[in-house]
Amino acid sequence: MKTVGYAAHDAKSPLVQYTFDRRDLRSNDVAIEILYCGVCHSDLHQTRDDWKAFNPTAYPCIPGHEIIGKVVDIGSEVTRYRVGQQVAVGTIVDSCSQCDQCRMGEEQMCREYPIVTYNGRDRITGDVTYGGYSKHIVVRESFVLALPDGLDPALAGPLLCAGITVYSPLRTWNAGPGSRVGVIGIGGLGHLAVRFSEGLGAHVTVITRTSAKADEAYSLGADDVLLSTSEDAMAKAASAFDVIIDTIPVKHDISPYVSLLDVSGVLVIVGNLGDMEGFNTLPLISGRRRITGSPSGGIAQTQEMLDFCARKGIVPDCETVAIQDINQAFERMERGDVRYRFVIDMASLPTA
Amino acid sequence: MKTVGYAAHDAKSPLVQYTFDRRDLRSNDVAIEILYCGVCHSDLHQTRDDWKAFNPTAYPCIPGHEIIGKVVDIGSEVTRYRVGQQVAVGTIVDSCSQCDQCRMGEEQMCREYPIVTYNGRDRITGDVTYGGYSKHIVVRESFVLALPDGLDPALAGPLLCAGITVYSPLRTWNAGPGSRVGVIGIGGLGHLAVRFSEGLGAHVTVITRTSAKADEAYSLGADDVLLSTSEDAMAKAASAFDVIIDTIPVKHDISPYVSLLDVSGVLVIVGNLGDMEGFNTLPLISGRRRITGSPSGGIAQTQEMLDFCARKGIVPDCETVAIQDINQAFERMERGDVRYRFVIDMASLPTA
Repeated sequence: MKTVGYAAHDAKSPLVQYTFDRRDLRSNDVAIEILYCGVCHSDLHQTRDDWKAFNPTAYPCIPGHEIIGKVVDIGSEVTRYRVGQQVAVGTIVDSCSQCDQCRMGEEQMCREYPIVTYNGRDRITGDVTYGGYSKHIVVRESFVLALPDGLDPALAGPLLCAGITVYSPLRTWNAGPGSRVGVIGIGGLGHLAVRFSEGLGAHVTVITRTSAKADEAYSLGADDVLLSTSEDAMAKAASAFDVIIDTIPVKHDISPYVSLLDVSGVLVIVGNLGDMEGFNTLPLISGRRRITGSPSGGIAQTQEMLDFCARKGIVPDCETVAIQDINQAFERMERGDVRYRFVIDMASLPTA
Repeated sequence: MKTVGYAAHDAKSPLVQYTFDRRDLRSNDVAIEILYCGVCHSDLHQTRDDWKAFNPTAYPCIPGHEIIGKVVDIGSEVTRYRVGQQVAVGTIVDSCSQCDQCRMGEEQMCREYPIVTYNGRDRITGDVTYGGYSKHIVVRESFVLALPDGLDPALAGPLLCAGITVYSPLRTWNAGPGSRVGVIGIGGLGHLAVRFSEGLGAHVTVITRTSAKADEAYSLGADDVLLSTSEDAMAKAASAFDVIIDTIPVKHDISPYVSLLDVSGVLVIVGNLGDMEGFNTLPLISGRRRITGSPSGGIAQTQEMLDFCARKGIVPDCETVAIQDINQAFERMERGDVRYRFVIDMASLPTA
């Protein structure tokens, strides 16, 4: 199928309109017309080849892995979706389906490495995968999610990456009634972590460097705000958290946050920040405290999150942009000038 | 009660014989004649005031918290022990009994801090506590453990600190049939971690820098030996462990060991080593791997371990010494010249 998208042709040029082919439908494929696509920091990093060392970019690169669309065609063996149905696609589009991780529904941990939505390699043809900054996409049925009724398609996109990245550790560490969750940083990930924690029934505190963010935190559903620049407040909050979701997007000293954990509490780092500063063994040993990280979630858990959001009325705060404005959106995202995610309205993209 | 022990009178002098008073029995106290006391690295550090910054030593200091003895008297309300019974005392002798941690049987995590067996302060009188390098000790009934039949009193001592320190994280992280445990370092703690893991039914691998330790590892019950100095062997062992108990007693780079963890695997540091080098977020995030620490265990878990050891026939490898040789034993322990723990035979100490 001929379609159109926005592609980077090298690490330095802006994204431009680009016509290309999507693969013919395999028997287990779903063809989707994309209605909206969220804009993720990864899109910017991948198109600029910022990860050259461990994940070099194949050009042209069409980014986008927060995809909302509607089914326009299905392969002969597809049973879960019908034409016209609203669906979603996240960060992965295939995996081996055979290994222990895939069988547990942890496809993002596939032992053969899952096929990522863009800049991956198709398992069958080896062709480069192209993402959601485009009019259409063709995806294996098992990696397509149902968009539940009641979830606004114009806003749901960022749930597919930003959302599941914080939803997954909250579920891993049993955030719920009686648990005390801290969220460090209010951005694309942090604001959803606050809403999810509140929706799951936990007591949620926003941990922030500036009191100017307090109103914002409360309006998102935070029960409390902890000012990390106040030594007094931080000392009083010692051992006060069961789970802290650390969304700080740059290298930082985790020690002040580890001290906030209660016995067996866990600090979950969700930003891949590379080499971090050291840590002290004392709080880990004396209180069995834990430092961990978390990737995205599996397909089943992503569907669970979408259904949860529909039931609880949780959506991200989004600013809708036309695809023609994507390069400006990248610049604004770099400056942190967005509350909290951009979503591309794909109606702005003419059909090929 | 007048009794006799071995005390350090300052940070530099050797331990010498010292006559002192044990408190009169309270209604819930048990008086114990000490038969054996294990020698722990902590004894050396505390008597030499190595922890001055956060835990200064009150002199005279009578160390020892791996105590095996027999009951010689009981308070009026004591119900669990009778005169003549063989018992044990570990690293703590009292706690608040009221907080959430104490109520969960995690007295070592007491919110008011547990009273340690030596160099602590009695909860009622505020007097300094004296440890097991002595003929007698008086301990609150709830902090006395029963020595099960079949556990050799001459060898059981080191279970009370070295043992529980590695038993507790193995239980926290569910070591058992099907789990793949790694133990880094074969010393006082490491050799017990191997025996416990084997006894719990786990597959246990000793991770060591020298192939010279391979026979030793297998004789302790290891299923495998992994040479950490072999890049090839380490690469092959990537993602091969669920739990790694890290008993290295000096600061070290944990990165090579984190890479050995499988998805959701955990590296448990049991040595309080202070500030450690940094870590990389990638293995934590990509595999939800965890870094944690572990202190001692609670009273109930310590009893569980003693009972488990009796059932499984697990004891530490010990070298018995007379108390008159304690200063030499300290020197040898510092050099690592002991397989794997010293135990003082208290019969060598004349009655006061």
